[in-house]
Formats: sequence, C-alpha cells, structure tokens
Amino acid sequence: MSDLRQQALDYHANPQPGKIAMTVTKPSQTSQDLALAYSPGVAEPVREIANDAEAVFQYTNKGNTVAVISNGTAILGLGNLGAMASKPVMEGKSLLFKRFANIDSFDIQVNNEDPNAFIETVANIADSFGGINLEDIKAPECFEIEKALIERCQVPVFHDDQHGTAIVTAAAMLNALEIQGKDLNHAKIVCLGAGAAAIACMQLLVTCGAQRENIYMLDRKGVIHTCRDDLNEYKRLFANNTDKRTLQDVLFEADVFVGVSGPNLLSADDLSLMAKNPVVFACSNPDPEISPEVALQTRDDVIVATGRSDYPNQVNNVLCFPFIFRGALDVRAKEINDAMKVAAVHAIREITKQPVPEDVLAACGEVDLVFGKNYIIPKPMDSRLLTEVARAVAQAAIDSGVAQIPMPANSIY
Amino acid sequence: MSDLRQQALDYHANPQPGKIAMTVTKPSQTSQDLALAYSPGVAEPVREIANDAEAVFQYTNKGNTVAVISNGTAILGLGNLGAMASKPVMEGKSLLFKRFANIDSFDIQVNNEDPNAFIETVANIADSFGGINLEDIKAPECFEIEKALIERCQVPVFHDDQHGTAIVTAAAMLNALEIQGKDLNHAKIVCLGAGAAAIACMQLLVTCGAQRENIYMLDRKGVIHTCRDDLNEYKRLFANNTDKRTLQDVLFEADVFVGVSGPNLLSADDLSLMAKNPVVFACSNPDPEISPEVALQTRDDVIVATGRSDYPNQVNNVLCFPFIFRGALDVRAKEINDAMKVAAVHAIREITKQPVPEDVLAACGEVDLVFGKNYIIPKPMDSRLLTEVARAVAQAAIDSGVAQIPMPANSIY
Repeated sequence: MSDLRQQALDYHANPQPGKIAMTVTKPSQTSQDLALAYSPGVAEPVREIANDAEAVFQYTNKGNTVAVISNGTAILGLGNLGAMASKPVMEGKSLLFKRFANIDSFDIQVNNEDPNAFIETVANIADSFGGINLEDIKAPECFEIEKALIERCQVPVFHDDQHGTAIVTAAAMLNALEIQGKDLNHAKIVCLGAGAAAIACMQLLVTCGAQRENIYMLDRKGVIHTCRDDLNEYKRLFANNTDKRTLQDVLFEADVFVGVSGPNLLSADDLSLMAKNPVVFACSNPDPEISPEVALQTRDDVIVATGRSDYPNQVNNVLCFPFIFRGALDVRAKEINDAMKVAAVHAIREITKQPVPEDVLAACGEVDLVFGKNYIIPKPMDSRLLTEVARAVAQAAIDSGVAQIPMPANSIY
Repeated sequence: MSDLRQQALDYHANPQPGKIAMTVTKPSQTSQDLALAYSPGVAEPVREIANDAEAVFQYTNKGNTVAVISNGTAILGLGNLGAMASKPVMEGKSLLFKRFANIDSFDIQVNNEDPNAFIETVANIADSFGGINLEDIKAPECFEIEKALIERCQVPVFHDDQHGTAIVTAAAMLNALEIQGKDLNHAKIVCLGAGAAAIACMQLLVTCGAQRENIYMLDRKGVIHTCRDDLNEYKRLFANNTDKRTLQDVLFEADVFVGVSGPNLLSADDLSLMAKNPVVFACSNPDPEISPEVALQTRDDVIVATGRSDYPNQVNNVLCFPFIFRGALDVRAKEINDAMKVAAVHAIREITKQPVPEDVLAACGEVDLVFGKNYIIPKPMDSRLLTEVARAVAQAAIDSGVAQIPMPANSIY
C-alpha cells in the first residue's frame, strides 16, 4: 500500500505536475497562421456566431468539450476535503474522458460550499462547454444542484456519482439476475447506504422495472420506513411501509444486496439470510461491504460484484460516463434523459453477452471472458463500449426528441 | 478581404471545429496506469493537498494553467456581440499562450453581463487556475471587475486589453522617443480614445515618467478637461486643467499622438500641427487613425506605429501577455503588480536594441532588423521575448515581494 502511495505521488508529480494539458490543433507557427487564428482573421467566425448562435459548434471546440466541476464536498470516499483537494480526481476524470472517448475535458473547482453560489457560478459559465459533468458533491445538496442546473443550462448536466454509478450498477444487476434466473420486477432488494449513489441506483432500478415496495434502503439509523420523521425528500422516496427495522430483518430472503456504504458491513451470517442464488454488489471502495472470498466461502450460489479492479465484476463508472457524453455530444443532446440512461444500461448489458473479440481480450489482459457469474459486466478496456454505448445513447436522444442534430456522418459508430 | 474571410472560416472549421484541445500528459493505456491516475491511486495526492494546500502545485497542473475569461461585451473592435461570439477570440488567446509560452490555457465565457455576477462567478472558480486573463470586457465595467477580482483572488488577474496594450505601447513609445531625441518626462502627449486601453496606456506612461498635465485625452465629446461634469472616475483621472477643446487644439506642438479610437480620425493636416520629430501610434485595428503611407508623405520626421502586421512597428499584445504570465507563474506571483509591468516594458525595449540573431531573423522572415524608426519594437516571432521578458517579470516579482517561490532551477531563462 505504501508502494502504491509513492507510485501514485510520483505519477502525479513527475516529470511535470498533473495529468492533463492543453494543445493547439491548428497551424500556429507562422505570422500567416496567426493572422487566421487571431486578429484579423478571427473576426470572421466571431461575426458568424454573432449572426447565428449555432455557428459556435462549427468554429470552436465547444461541441467536444466537457467541464468536470466539483466543490470538493464529497471527494471519493474521503469526505469534504475542500475544493482544491478534489483537483487530482477532477483531472483524472478529464483524463478518462480523453482516453476513452476523445472528449476534451478540463476541470473547474468551485471554491464555495454554498449550493446557490455553486448553481449561479456553473449556470453563468455553462455555455462555454458542450456538457457538464458534476462530481464529488455531497448529498443531499447534489440533488438540488443537479436539478437546478438541468433546468437552467442549455447543455447536458450529469452528476456522474449518481447516474454513472446507477447505469453501470443497473447493467450489471440485470445481467446478474438473468444468470441467477431471477427477474428485477419481482426481486427483493436491500440497499445499504442512502447517499447520492444509492438513491440514484434505486431510482434507475425502478425505471428498469424494480418495484418500489420491494426495495429496502438503510441509512445509519437503519431501515428507511414510512414512520420515520427524519428523512429528507430524497430518502423519503424510498421510505418503505414496513415493520422491519434492521439490516438482518430485511436481508431475510432478499434476492439482491447493494452496498454503497462502508467496509465490512455485511457479515457472512448476514449473507446466509438471503434467498437462494443471491446477488451481492459490495461497492464500498477500496474495502467492500463483504470481501468476495468470504462471500464465496459462505455460499457458492452467490454472484458478487465490487468496485475493485482486482476481483471479477468491477462496477466502474468509466464503463458509462465517457460514452454517455460521447453520444450526447455527437447529436448535441439538450439533456441526458432517462431514455438515454436506459439505452446505456442495455448497451452495456448486451456487450457482456457478445463473444469478446481477440483484440479486446488482449487489451483487457484476459485469456477468456464468458458471460456468467464472474463476467456480468464488460472490462473498462473493452473498446466496444465506445462504439456500442455511444451509439445507443445518441439514438435514444434522437428517438426521445432531445437531439438537436442528426447522427453525424463521420460517426465512429 | 473576402479571401481572408473564407480562409479564416476554413481554418476555424476544418478538419475539426476550433483551435484548441485537451491532452493527457501521463501514461493512461493500461489498467495499472489508470489505477494511479484515478481510483485508487488518486486518493494519495488528494490527501496531500488536503493536508497542505500548496501541494496542489506539485500534483496538478494548476500552476501552468491560465483561464481566458470574457463576457463578450467588447469583442475586438466589434462591440458587444454576446459571450458566445467571443469564443473564437478566447480560443485564439489560449492558442497564443501555448504557442509562445507553453502555458496551458483554456477559455471560459461568462454568459451574464452583470459585472457583479461576473465577479462572483470568476472569484468562485479562480483557484482552479494559476492565473486569470480577462479579455474583451467593455469599459468602464472592466475597471471595477478587474479591481474586485484582484482583491478577491489568490492568483494573478490581468486584463490584457488594458495592461498588455499599455506595456507594449510604453516599450515602443520609450524607444520611439529615444530615437527622436525626446524624453517622456517632457513629452506633450495626445491620446485619442478614452476606453480601457487608452486609460491603461496613459496610466502606465505616467508610471514610466510622463507628466499627467502633459497628457491630453479625448473621448467622443472632445478634450477631457476639468470643467466637464460627464466623466466617469477613470476618465476623471486624466481631466486636464486646460481651455483646449478640440483634437486640433491639443495637437499643436504635441510630441506624441496615441490613437486607440477609430479609422482615419487623424488627418494629414492634423499631423502637420505636431511638433518636430513626432511619434504617432495609430492603433485602431484593422484601419488605423492615419495610414502610415499618408503620415510619411505628410512629413518625413515622424515615427509611425500601428496595430497591423503588414507595416513596421506593430504594437501587438502578444509581445507581452504570454511572457508576463510565464514569469508570474514561474515564481507563483500573487499578483501582477506595477513593478512587473515596468520590468516587462524595459525588457521588451532592450530586446529591440540588441543585435537580432540569425535564427530570429529567419523566424521573423526578415533580412535585417536594426533599432531605428522602422524597428522600435520586437517582432512577435522573436524567441528572445520568452526568455528575456519572462525572466525580467519573475525577477521583479521576487524583488517586489509578491513571488511565493524562488526562480525555478529548471527555468528556461
């Protein structure tokens, strides 16, 4: 661990600080080049945009740019460490946008914890970009921030900690349930954790067919039920009309456990309470709610997923966010709506079921990947994600009426 | 002209829209790379920054990043065309930052004309960057915006339209006066125009030794004098206690004319009124206050400078802004103060007087450049600007106590 620590610090510090930079995409060496790039030539695209606002997509890089924006109030699982401490994570997110989807992304920290100041600030600068990825903002403020910005901004606003997590979780969950011979519509679901990711995951599972009354969400005080008077409006959406109060109460005969909470909060005894052929997503990072070894020693009928790359079935946001933005940008979607999210879920699902091409296997460092208990979700290095997920998202944007241009002729799909 | 128009539009549109992009500076191909760039490795620099705010310069690219920010209220000489129409200019500015000083710059449009909203927005995001270059904001709002942001931000804030123009103008002016055998302290100066650039130019000339009572500034209503009651506080700084009222009144026996106004506002007859060996800076772009041909036909004792690259003596901001920020970033200056501006003036002056190396001549496409009436200021392609101006600015920051780190060991100087 101390080795990873030093490696990570070296990686970030050398040979120069940070992970991203800016680059010039047009000739800029000669005076003639600069006379086009800047004065006097630049006045021409300025006039075009002044006459027709849409021309900004033709003459600037706005359409391929996503800003990654945080206030640092919930950095990874580390808590509220201040806006500037989030910068390595935000630069990392920008790196992933470029690496996986060729999106030009850079990071902005809003050094102000007041949600209204955050909203005003981001709304004022939003038009600079093709889309906005919100990141590492604590609940419940993240909900009102995202809602307000979606209403006020002309470009897609997407809180990846919520919806990216939810999309990848839903894709993996539908596959796991299929393998276990179960059906989301009838599954009894326990969700340990009631933060932004937990609520978004459960919302999307409901959109995909789960029954709200079959969902039992727990926060630090236990089961979220209709008799509690300490719930914010977001938790209240999942208040269950039940007399069950503890994790053990609700785990009895449960089909699904989703953990977005903390390390080692699901014991072997807890796992034993669950129904036959259960599905356990222990997503606390880096230490899951139950280690896969313990889970599989306890019962061999379980499918386990975690947030870790060193176990099978990694639930990883990078399977979604670069590609949902790629699809949204390519058809200039006004927003990222539920239809686009569901399209991403099904595209990710389907990739898992297809035979894995040799080059993808090589890129993933695997000899074989076959749809089943240990492969319910694609690997991050799977290049099919870019083509399949982005295309599905773009098509869903078109079909649901939020696309502003047709699928591009020079599309990568 | 229509040819330039089409060339400029093609340049901006093809092969892809815009002029700048983002690039990844660290390995990102393998899972191992990504484990350092993002989760879990990224938690380590996050913790370091949470413990020590200065570590953000060690582990992120903040220290080499400048945001170019506009509200589009005064785009080039074209006026208030809206924030989005400024984007090609702002991307162009970012391109110049990279091309000339290897600074990673990107552009942000604040789509809100209210100066207070602009100030709040920029103050909230300023810590994301190593410095902020304000651009194309109309006067007089630009003055209060810059003042407020300098007070509120921990990083240098610099309105290039004011100070970049002023620094290059002052450097060229001091050289021109030297060649004409005149002295700034005694020069009678006429400034046609009273916008942001005009006021900043005259302020800096005063800092460099000009006498305020020898300066006659004119706006659309004529000479700015102490009896006028229609002056904002910025123009009032240059209200002259004089009974002169017209351009012709004040041009009589003037040593210097600075035009930051509009095309053809200085006639041959006007020029004839000036003192022997006058200096005329006709900086209106693209059409100067008087064409160099007309000026030189009228009298052969004049030195003429313009904003155009197709005449000698181009007063061009690019001679300053990349390098003043390079110097400021390299010693992490808290601000760009007068000492740093004056250091830039003198460094630019001195370069002009040195013999021009062969490689610089070649880069500038010139066979010879000798300090004199047709060479009072370096060419934009002169690579000595980077080393000389940045070093002088960094040293001035150190000497004036605003530098936060020593001159870097791996400095380019």
